[in-house]
Amino acid sequence: MKLQLSTWQEVEAYLKRSRGVVVPLGSTEQHGPSGLIGTDALCATAIAEGLAERADALLAPPITLGAAQFNLGFAGTISARASTLIALIEDYVRSLARHGFERIYFLNGHGGNLAPAKAAFQDLYGEYSLAGGRTALRMRVRSWWELPSVDRMRRELFGDWEGMHATPSEVAITQALYPALVAPAPKEPPRKLPAEFLRDHAGDNHYDAATHRRDFPDGRVGSHPGLANAEHGARLLEAAIADAVVDYRTFLEEK
Amino acid sequence: MKLQLSTWQEVEAYLKRSRGVVVPLGSTEQHGPSGLIGTDALCATAIAEGLAERADALLAPPITLGAAQFNLGFAGTISARASTLIALIEDYVRSLARHGFERIYFLNGHGGNLAPAKAAFQDLYGEYSLAGGRTALRMRVRSWWELPSVDRMRRELFGDWEGMHATPSEVAITQALYPALVAPAPKEPPRKLPAEFLRDHAGDNHYDAATHRRDFPDGRVGSHPGLANAEHGARLLEAAIADAVVDYRTFLEEK
Amino acid sequence: MKLQLSTWQEVEAYLKRSRGVVVPLGSTEQHGPSGLIGTDALCATAIAEGLAERADALLAPPITLGAAQFNLGFAGTISARASTLIALIEDYVRSLARHGFERIYFLNGHGGNLAPAKAAFQDLYGEYSLAGGRTALRMRVRSWWELPSVDRMRRELFGDWEGMHATPSEVAITQALYPALVAPAPKEPPRKLPAEFLRDHAGDNHYDAATHRRDFPDGRVGSHPGLANAEHGARLLEAAIADAVVDYRTFLEEK
Amino acid sequence: MKLQLSTWQEVEAYLKRSRGVVVPLGSTEQHGPSGLIGTDALCATAIAEGLAERADALLAPPITLGAAQFNLGFAGTISARASTLIALIEDYVRSLARHGFERIYFLNGHGGNLAPAKAAFQDLYGEYSLAGGRTALRMRVRSWWELPSVDRMRRELFGDWEGMHATPSEVAITQALYPALVAPAPKEPPRKLPAEFLRDHAGDNHYDAATHRRDFPDGRVGSHPGLANAEHGARLLEAAIADAVVDYRTFLEEK
Amino acid sequence: MKLQLSTWQEVEAYLKRSRGVVVPLGSTEQHGPSGLIGTDALCATAIAEGLAERADALLAPPITLGAAQFNLGFAGTISARASTLIALIEDYVRSLARHGFERIYFLNGHGGNLAPAKAAFQDLYGEYSLAGGRTALRMRVRSWWELPSVDRMRRELFGDWEGMHATPSEVAITQALYPALVAPAPKEPPRKLPAEFLRDHAGDNHYDAATHRRDFPDGRVGSHPGLANAEHGARLLEAAIADAVVDYRTFLEEK
Amino acid sequence: MKLQLSTWQEVEAYLKRSRGVVVPLGSTEQHGPSGLIGTDALCATAIAEGLAERADALLAPPITLGAAQFNLGFAGTISARASTLIALIEDYVRSLARHGFERIYFLNGHGGNLAPAKAAFQDLYGEYSLAGGRTALRMRVRSWWELPSVDRMRRELFGDWEGMHATPSEVAITQALYPALVAPAPKEPPRKLPAEFLRDHAGDNHYDAATHRRDFPDGRVGSHPGLANAEHGARLLEAAIADAVVDYRTFLEEK
Repeated sequence: MKLQLSTWQEVEAYLKRSRGVVVPLGSTEQHGPSGLIGTDALCATAIAEGLAERADALLAPPITLGAAQFNLGFAGTISARASTLIALIEDYVRSLARHGFERIYFLNGHGGNLAPAKAAFQDLYGEYSLAGGRTALRMRVRSWWELPSVDRMRRELFGDWEGMHATPSEVAITQALYPALVAPAPKEPPRKLPAEFLRDHAGDNHYDAATHRRDFPDGRVGSHPGLANAEHGARLLEAAIADAVVDYRTFLEEK
Repeated sequence: MKLQLSTWQEVEAYLKRSRGVVVPLGSTEQHGPSGLIGTDALCATAIAEGLAERADALLAPPITLGAAQFNLGFAGTISARASTLIALIEDYVRSLARHGFERIYFLNGHGGNLAPAKAAFQDLYGEYSLAGGRTALRMRVRSWWELPSVDRMRRELFGDWEGMHATPSEVAITQALYPALVAPAPKEPPRKLPAEFLRDHAGDNHYDAATHRRDFPDGRVGSHPGLANAEHGARLLEAAIADAVVDYRTFLEEK
Repeated sequence: MKLQLSTWQEVEAYLKRSRGVVVPLGSTEQHGPSGLIGTDALCATAIAEGLAERADALLAPPITLGAAQFNLGFAGTISARASTLIALIEDYVRSLARHGFERIYFLNGHGGNLAPAKAAFQDLYGEYSLAGGRTALRMRVRSWWELPSVDRMRRELFGDWEGMHATPSEVAITQALYPALVAPAPKEPPRKLPAEFLRDHAGDNHYDAATHRRDFPDGRVGSHPGLANAEHGARLLEAAIADAVVDYRTFLEEK
Repeated sequence: MKLQLSTWQEVEAYLKRSRGVVVPLGSTEQHGPSGLIGTDALCATAIAEGLAERADALLAPPITLGAAQFNLGFAGTISARASTLIALIEDYVRSLARHGFERIYFLNGHGGNLAPAKAAFQDLYGEYSLAGGRTALRMRVRSWWELPSVDRMRRELFGDWEGMHATPSEVAITQALYPALVAPAPKEPPRKLPAEFLRDHAGDNHYDAATHRRDFPDGRVGSHPGLANAEHGARLLEAAIADAVVDYRTFLEEK
Repeated sequence: MKLQLSTWQEVEAYLKRSRGVVVPLGSTEQHGPSGLIGTDALCATAIAEGLAERADALLAPPITLGAAQFNLGFAGTISARASTLIALIEDYVRSLARHGFERIYFLNGHGGNLAPAKAAFQDLYGEYSLAGGRTALRMRVRSWWELPSVDRMRRELFGDWEGMHATPSEVAITQALYPALVAPAPKEPPRKLPAEFLRDHAGDNHYDAATHRRDFPDGRVGSHPGLANAEHGARLLEAAIADAVVDYRTFLEEK
Repeated sequence: MKLQLSTWQEVEAYLKRSRGVVVPLGSTEQHGPSGLIGTDALCATAIAEGLAERADALLAPPITLGAAQFNLGFAGTISARASTLIALIEDYVRSLARHGFERIYFLNGHGGNLAPAKAAFQDLYGEYSLAGGRTALRMRVRSWWELPSVDRMRRELFGDWEGMHATPSEVAITQALYPALVAPAPKEPPRKLPAEFLRDHAGDNHYDAATHRRDFPDGRVGSHPGLANAEHGARLLEAAIADAVVDYRTFLEEK
């Protein structure tokens, strides 16, 4: 059930049977030599749609800008400041809580969103914590690639070439979604990154844009999207949706 | 050309032939007894897509939350604070300007966005104005219903029943876009609003949500969407796109 | 009754008979070759004073800085950021509401203030809307030139030469108020502006200061203040006050 | 020379002979049983006007709201948050600096403004300090009662009954300015405050409004405005202007 | 070399041999039935001191408040909003960068600080990324428990009883630092947490304070500090310092 | 009783016998040719510790960064923006008030903190003042050098050479605290400052950093720390603690 394609009466009826809602969290940034700029938003939205359909959950409109300052050296990237993203997430949560929603599940497609999302949650809960009362409101941010079957599958399919950005997994999903649109990525692998780099820059914890472009001139960050194909994408998508349904239902049942 | 479905190299190539970009500006709020919550975003996006296609313009992803606090009394409305919307528009503009875009055209579908958008422009230009230099950067916000042919057509089709919110025009467009989804609106007209009300509350300059729901219990604000049909919608959509193309091209040519 | 010249006991007594208050909203910016930098504040204050006197309304001190970044290329302009003006209007409203005021009428003299004022209202109402309760608090911003008799009169007197900034109407009012101070404006008309310009830049929706000065080197924006005289000013002032009294009283009676 | 009553060309000419400007800093708050709510702004403006006239200085429009939260328990007080006042002072300074002003002299009439003014200066200078360059920009905030002759005179005239708020000095000045408007204050003195109170609450460093009204039910804070008369006011005004001229000139000559 | 105990000339001299600096990042919050409220700051500071000494690095004063809203239900917890912590980290970085520091290493002792720290880095780099230039400035936040030898050791020593908060590892370190002060923790283990809880609440991504106290009434979150002793603490401290030296040196050498 | 070295149960017990808490307020900035960068924080913390011990008061962790933009021209200075310091003080106060603390005593060691601290208090009280209720919450900021015995002693010991920054008093205290660390200051006095300078720049109301370094090249601002010795420091420390105990107790007893 898509919020944008529903009436307010339908949402009112939905609230009688569920207090949960799903919000896709994307980004709008370069995704390597062949990847789509919308990759993160497209993947998060597709998975969230599948989840909403199977779990009979309400799907809110996606947040399409993410915190992606490090990619501003590549044409087309539009980055939200962390402070803007925090404010926007606060507005989603406060508006939804106003109607009685109590479980807000952000299905995330961009590592750089994790810090702002968690910071937003801290300050939202903090208002209740200072006031002293207890709230039934819960937020969760879940990146699709950390869902257990997906995580296993992407390692099996691509091993270390999954890398960090413009990953074969996400490119594969866009190939499944838009087969005509995604050109094949180069067959030559990118520079291999040491494990320390992945650890230290997890959550897209990268430096400034000019440094980032110097270090990753075609936009691939240790990832080899040339290994991806649409069939991988379809399998990853299915795995992600199946896992997300379980995860979302567990979240709904939390006390 | 859709930014989300392009690669960064394609955007780089686009910038060699144009400095313009189109951003749909929507909202996520109740639209009366039968209207879709996403109506404002859906209309703005559809018109902006048509514009981008015909004018060979780049289409950025839509801003789907608008400033819609007055509709928070109706389930499903998600409202951005004016301050959040200002910050988000600043991020769009600064990111796009970083790549060399100089004409940023916001195709607007929600009256309540006009004040925040213009306030954002003031503070963006203000940074240049205080620094002293001159910038080639230009922003415009254009609501589709003020485009001349659309404005004429909606008055011809619906007269005063166009009203202010959940208008037959916007509902007609969603009927054209999603014929299966939009149920017919009630045939009984809503309460008729005096001209003074329209003047004083233009730009969705409404009061608080509880007052708004008291005054407009089914969400129609002087509008009679029961008069709309999909054929109206198709004609309005066509008129809006045709006008927007002219308007956008004029904007590009400004000095 | 002027707030600044009253005691707190007098305001307490006033609140027993009225919940309304008038706040002039001005600006401090260049007004063409002969106009006073304070023109917007002076006009708004004079009209608001007349209104307060005739309607037995309380007059709060004026907001003298407006959002006028586009005029920073001319010496003497002092511009408030939109965000500052929003904060200041919030402080006016919250303080006045604390005492029991429920109808706050901003008599506006500067187009660039409309967006920040409306954005401030959105976020003020939004606090109530998120909390869920209903408030009796109402704000209105009314530019004096849109009052019906004034609007008619200024078109009759000056036609298209009314223009956008340093208008003959506002200059005439300052001539009536300060006959000794306002030098006659040049008799040569400024560059004539196309109707599109007026439409697209309504609400002083102008570009950066250096561009603005390039385009309007003496500060007149399609206006021909050389047509103004003090007698026009007196008539406009009278019309504005008379209309504002009616408008304010209607506002007081809103439910 | 009043900025509001000047043209931009006159300000441009002024800047060729001086880089200084005077800004009155007032407040809008209760001033005891007979004092005017505008007392702080009226006093600061009158002294600043005298200063500007004698020193051939430019006079900017006053800031009429001060940080006066502690007086919100008395009808009519309008208080700016410290954060708003900081933003507004920043806008004054940045706008004036844009035109080449280098000495900005805030003539202050309200103790509660000192902390926000100084905090604003810190963050304004801080921008230059972080950037690394040197600026010729200087701000000063001077309360009129600390000018040496005024300080001496008010102690001679009123001794300890000068107190902290609704002081006989400020009330006397408004009596000189508006003889018809200011009713005589009660002849009974208020509660006498211990020296520790004055020390600990200097700069209007008071508690919340309800506590303040509990402790000072008629608004006098250790002050006995019943001792004031218009003649005192005229002498204090003259002393303040004379001292301010000297002080301002010294400020202009700083390196 | 401790910044607080150095002169500015000594820092100037230091900058000739190094561009690195270490900042401990702590928190001030309950740490279970026997743990010290300052545990996070004490551990981070002790490790950072050891690191600074061995690596000849400059040690800046610690940030003692962390983002700890979920612990506000326990007396003594002082929590910084995420937005405050972001601002404070920005001030550290901008001030240090002003002097020429280029490698700022935050040694972290509280999971809840990770999101605000990373969000702060995003917005700091983002300023450079929007401006377009390249910066040599690098920030890193490293939690001591993720250093490889520490991570191994704490698993060996405490297995799953390491838990999330008031961990035996951190309590052990405070026992080593303040043997007289830390009372033994209860010998009865706390409620065991499922792996899903640890995954979903990593980074102290907890709910509001009243919920948190309901779920963890004595403040232990799956941790069994009763297993800790001072000897463990000494070993963990040594391991953390040794690893941090290596990690910091690698960071210094990044390009 | 040190908060950082207490458990939450101990704080809970403390709250049964007292509602007061002491927070040292320091700064991290150059202190002349021989002074320690941490001087302000070290002095404030040492005095606050003595106070807490003798008055059986709870001691919160110090705020170590102050508003010190004017010293950014000297290596090692880390300055908090006034706005950051305001936010941080708000977090201290709101967190402590959450637990029932009602008297929050900031023992201050840096003049530049006074404006931000008072501005923070204004906005904290202002929230209660707008809401309308009364609060028992009280904050005080007390600089140790204004305590009466200290003020007398430092004038007796150093006369005018006390000056403004890197004062012999504060350097003496650090000599008493860290005898091995503080090198003797130059025996040549600095440039003598006129009384006007001290008056106009009280509260460290200085200009930008580059100007400040130009005017005070070795960091002494009219102060002659070469007159200080550890014995002076011990006496000043004792006087400060004794006075602070009295002052704090009086504060606790306020209604």
